[in-house]
Amino acid sequence: MAGVRDGTVLGIGDDAALLDIPGAVVVCHDMLVEGVHFRRATATLADIGHKALAVNLSDLAAMGARPVAALVGLTVPHGGLDAAGWDELYEGMEDLALAHGTTIAGGDTTVGPVLTLAVTAVGALDGALPLTRSGATAGDVLCVTGPLGAAAAGLRLIEGECAPGVTVHAPGLIAAQRRPSPRVLEGRILAGSGAGAGMDISDGLALDALRLAGESGLRARIALEDVPVAPGVAEVARAIGLEPAHLAATGGEDYELLVALPPERVERLSSVLPRPLHVCGRLEGDGIELTLAGRPWSPGPLGWEAG
Amino acid sequence: MAGVRDGTVLGIGDDAALLDIPGAVVVCHDMLVEGVHFRRATATLADIGHKALAVNLSDLAAMGARPVAALVGLTVPHGGLDAAGWDELYEGMEDLALAHGTTIAGGDTTVGPVLTLAVTAVGALDGALPLTRSGATAGDVLCVTGPLGAAAAGLRLIEGECAPGVTVHAPGLIAAQRRPSPRVLEGRILAGSGAGAGMDISDGLALDALRLAGESGLRARIALEDVPVAPGVAEVARAIGLEPAHLAATGGEDYELLVALPPERVERLSSVLPRPLHVCGRLEGDGIELTLAGRPWSPGPLGWEAG
Repeated sequence: MAGVRDGTVLGIGDDAALLDIPGAVVVCHDMLVEGVHFRRATATLADIGHKALAVNLSDLAAMGARPVAALVGLTVPHGGLDAAGWDELYEGMEDLALAHGTTIAGGDTTVGPVLTLAVTAVGALDGALPLTRSGATAGDVLCVTGPLGAAAAGLRLIEGECAPGVTVHAPGLIAAQRRPSPRVLEGRILAGSGAGAGMDISDGLALDALRLAGESGLRARIALEDVPVAPGVAEVARAIGLEPAHLAATGGEDYELLVALPPERVERLSSVLPRPLHVCGRLEGDGIELTLAGRPWSPGPLGWEAG
Repeated sequence: MAGVRDGTVLGIGDDAALLDIPGAVVVCHDMLVEGVHFRRATATLADIGHKALAVNLSDLAAMGARPVAALVGLTVPHGGLDAAGWDELYEGMEDLALAHGTTIAGGDTTVGPVLTLAVTAVGALDGALPLTRSGATAGDVLCVTGPLGAAAAGLRLIEGECAPGVTVHAPGLIAAQRRPSPRVLEGRILAGSGAGAGMDISDGLALDALRLAGESGLRARIALEDVPVAPGVAEVARAIGLEPAHLAATGGEDYELLVALPPERVERLSSVLPRPLHVCGRLEGDGIELTLAGRPWSPGPLGWEAG
């Protein structure tokens, strides 16, 4: 018999999985490739599994969707994973799936030159309007759901660009890089409250805010001194000769949400979210303007873009 | 603005795609990896794109689902595809999507050591019961929706194991291997008519029938002389020293549907399907029995299984 799991009508073992989703269905797909997105030397298989699912749940969160199920496509080198390795990889995914009430409903496994995780996440809106990138209006404030820069600082520590001794927060920064927390609950609350626009911060606040503003036909003004910086990021930044704002605004991979909403709604929404919103900018015209201490500031590249 | 395409509420350009699917949602995921599932030397990029989507649409067909959308994850080597190559790869997918009234709603593109296509297909049942592998009952006949062996014979021709001159049907056999036709309409009709069980024949009739029988707790009896063999398969089989039944029963990749249903329903269903059903066996106990000219027959391995 096909294995039937929570959240699915029919799961692993048939030609496809059958999901019971009332109303609109949200689907997204993100791949993690060994040597491009991770290295086996600097991440455990559980970390890799966690992150592959997390980035997809974050895309659902960015739409305000409830995760229903995930499909996992894997390419694994011949002899690349022993039984314990498989268990560890899936444990990383299953633990995160469990934490968000979702399930791995199927997928595909094949051989390939490097470990590749191709994850599809499927979610439900349950009647809420989706958080899109194009729904903001002039006068909206830009808010983030939590402090930024931790994942980028963690990557510098993992890559050895900076000694872990520079900050007592090194373990937390490394965990932020390896085990990002998708802001699923936050996305549900924000979509349910009718926030104008939203997305997840995967490629850096500056670049992602530019995208959101662009999709909404507006211009983003971000005051970098108002961007919340995660503990320990300043120490790492200084150790490698960067402004803390550089890591916080362009580092990416924090997977906090960036939302645009009327300023008068920030206080009430902050009171119902797990953590208060941080207002760090405003939408006015089109494009993006970064300021630091009131003056225009440019970090060079705004964030990570595929070459 | 995010690109909105037929069949999707919100498509490429936001964090996820938004689909309008009434009722149960069917999702499946299959990967094609260069050097494992295809070689660039023996298939065009349009062939590869076509096949990556086709095998997923075939999984939807095997559930009786209507294709709604597909997400495409791609890993491409650095410098691996020029603009014309991208166009060709997508053309192969888009043409097939169009033929089945579906749409490519999003996905992910990244670099990787070899060309890898990770396709997710999402479908709707529109109120029909799904065709599962476990719904057959003793006394059901096993039917296939079309002749078998063409894709396996085509592979032997492509790989040069046999000269194309052995049969005038060589081009058709090669096309069956490179451009399989998912039996979407057949699956919809069979599910809508309440066929007991069904699946697509991807790994060979014998192995797939064993799986269907196993999921239903039954034993399959297949008379190989009743298995329809595609034109030209016999000539290729003889040229490489095999029985034609060998390619037809174990070759795989034909993507015809295998269904189990009460014998009295074959005639009427055949009259409404694009091509009549071929009865080639029966479900009785558990396991599988192959006979040829009334005698038990073993081909060795029953079909293709991951090592």
